[in-house]
Amino acid sequence: MRRPVLAFLADQQRWEAWRAPVLAALAERGIKAELRFGAETPEEVDYILYAPTAARVDFSTFTRARAVLNLWAGVEGIVTDPSLTQPLCRMVDTSLVTGMVEYVTGHVLRHHLGMDRHVLGQDGIWRGREVPPLAADRSVGVLGLGELGAACAGALASLGFRVTGWSRRCRSLAGITCLDGTAGLDALVSQAEILVLLLPLTPATEGLIGAGVLARARPGVVLINPGRGGLIEDSALIAALDEGRVGHATLDAFREEPLPPEHPFWHHSKVTVTPHIAAATRPETAARVLAENIRRGEAGEPFLHLVDRAAGY
Amino acid sequence: MRRPVLAFLADQQRWEAWRAPVLAALAERGIKAELRFGAETPEEVDYILYAPTAARVDFSTFTRARAVLNLWAGVEGIVTDPSLTQPLCRMVDTSLVTGMVEYVTGHVLRHHLGMDRHVLGQDGIWRGREVPPLAADRSVGVLGLGELGAACAGALASLGFRVTGWSRRCRSLAGITCLDGTAGLDALVSQAEILVLLLPLTPATEGLIGAGVLARARPGVVLINPGRGGLIEDSALIAALDEGRVGHATLDAFREEPLPPEHPFWHHSKVTVTPHIAAATRPETAARVLAENIRRGEAGEPFLHLVDRAAGY
Repeated sequence: MRRPVLAFLADQQRWEAWRAPVLAALAERGIKAELRFGAETPEEVDYILYAPTAARVDFSTFTRARAVLNLWAGVEGIVTDPSLTQPLCRMVDTSLVTGMVEYVTGHVLRHHLGMDRHVLGQDGIWRGREVPPLAADRSVGVLGLGELGAACAGALASLGFRVTGWSRRCRSLAGITCLDGTAGLDALVSQAEILVLLLPLTPATEGLIGAGVLARARPGVVLINPGRGGLIEDSALIAALDEGRVGHATLDAFREEPLPPEHPFWHHSKVTVTPHIAAATRPETAARVLAENIRRGEAGEPFLHLVDRAAGY
Repeated sequence: MRRPVLAFLADQQRWEAWRAPVLAALAERGIKAELRFGAETPEEVDYILYAPTAARVDFSTFTRARAVLNLWAGVEGIVTDPSLTQPLCRMVDTSLVTGMVEYVTGHVLRHHLGMDRHVLGQDGIWRGREVPPLAADRSVGVLGLGELGAACAGALASLGFRVTGWSRRCRSLAGITCLDGTAGLDALVSQAEILVLLLPLTPATEGLIGAGVLARARPGVVLINPGRGGLIEDSALIAALDEGRVGHATLDAFREEPLPPEHPFWHHSKVTVTPHIAAATRPETAARVLAENIRRGEAGEPFLHLVDRAAGY
């Protein structure tokens, strides 16, 4: 039987980080495959392991490729590519979900407990009466209830937060109120004291957090965006922060990454920038997901985490 | 039947905060009692509701008192009082446990995720490679597995942390390794990257976190003390912070409270002081615990949360 050929299309640095974990994961599953770096002899390639930072690829030259396996969750940079006709799979790595839950839970608790006051303000003044409310009295809204959003909403509900989720299609999740539609979004943002953005980036969500939504948000709302930079209209957010309508924004994803040093987010006292670390893909665990999808492709089984091209994620 | 007389022994400010919640909780349970402020006519008092900030009390004058009900968890200020011969009950309020879990989980995640770096250092430099490990690769030690310690250890284990507990008597708790004795303490502190102190303050634990234990701790360990100030030898901790053996200390409880403005903890860059807010007693929920114990006393049932006088908690 012919060994499947895998083409790793990404930058050199990523190749160095992924090569060994991918080979180890293939060996673990007993898959004998040929792993190549780059887009040469595309007509020989069976599977494309793809990271969006790679140079523009003409997927139509990969005439026998059975699937494009994205190295991470977001596919907005590739899903509309007209040359891409092969099945496209997102990365859903459990360590990515775990990392996201840790980031979101940590930053929600940070804002809930008012930690910054203590981290930034060791002024010798004992403010013993400033006790935070309990999580049971704190309303958190989670926009997006996909794999990541649902896991975060569940972890927050376990800690006792009052969690409302918003999703294109309502999902029944224990301890979480789910809303949908424009009316649902308005209801959610008018109540939530902390808003977590975990929506996919699609034409329907691009710039969703703009002047309109921010005007209807609860005054002083805290925004946490570990999702996609394009969900936010940067200038509308800065205006809302300046006017005090938004209390704070903790942002992990940006329209341009790395976030340019001169971007106002870096310099705003009510913004915390983190460098896209909320859900880093960890090659060791992600490589196992790639290997599983290659095994499935070879066995003629359906792929995991197949992207719905019409919906865009 | 004679209405039991309740004496509220605490300062005026507390009386104002507690009076209505206590009356409401008594009414909720159908208990008809007389609630008094202060220590007058002690021979008429059936139950003493006590806060350690009240003036020195001679408990022997309360000749018919059936119990002393402490308004919060710590009883070290009263347990050795030779005039106190009545049963003494600690406050175990579920909202106190909940508040403690939120504080501990939040600050463990803060240190785990390295949040301070982002909160304090918005310098425009994108450090995208500095991804924190997952909780599954982070070792947390919880000293003390009483009501509070066990709840915190459980919440941390649920988030995936590798949790080891240390307790006078080992407790079997799901997902938590439990150690005891001096050898157990040494084993725990030599591994833990984050140490949470939730031991009661007793002659056996006073100053436990001193030069000896800190010398055996894992280099760079982070200390979180939402327990009792007396667990720590302040000067030994400052020396360990200065020498880099301890990476950071987040302290909520102190030998003297309010922590004096000139105390070095306020001015140390590796110390975060919070003003004893980790587990604030909330009168609304705590009053229900008091009412339940009064009901039990009247019905001749055993009291909840009775202090073991020999052990000191």
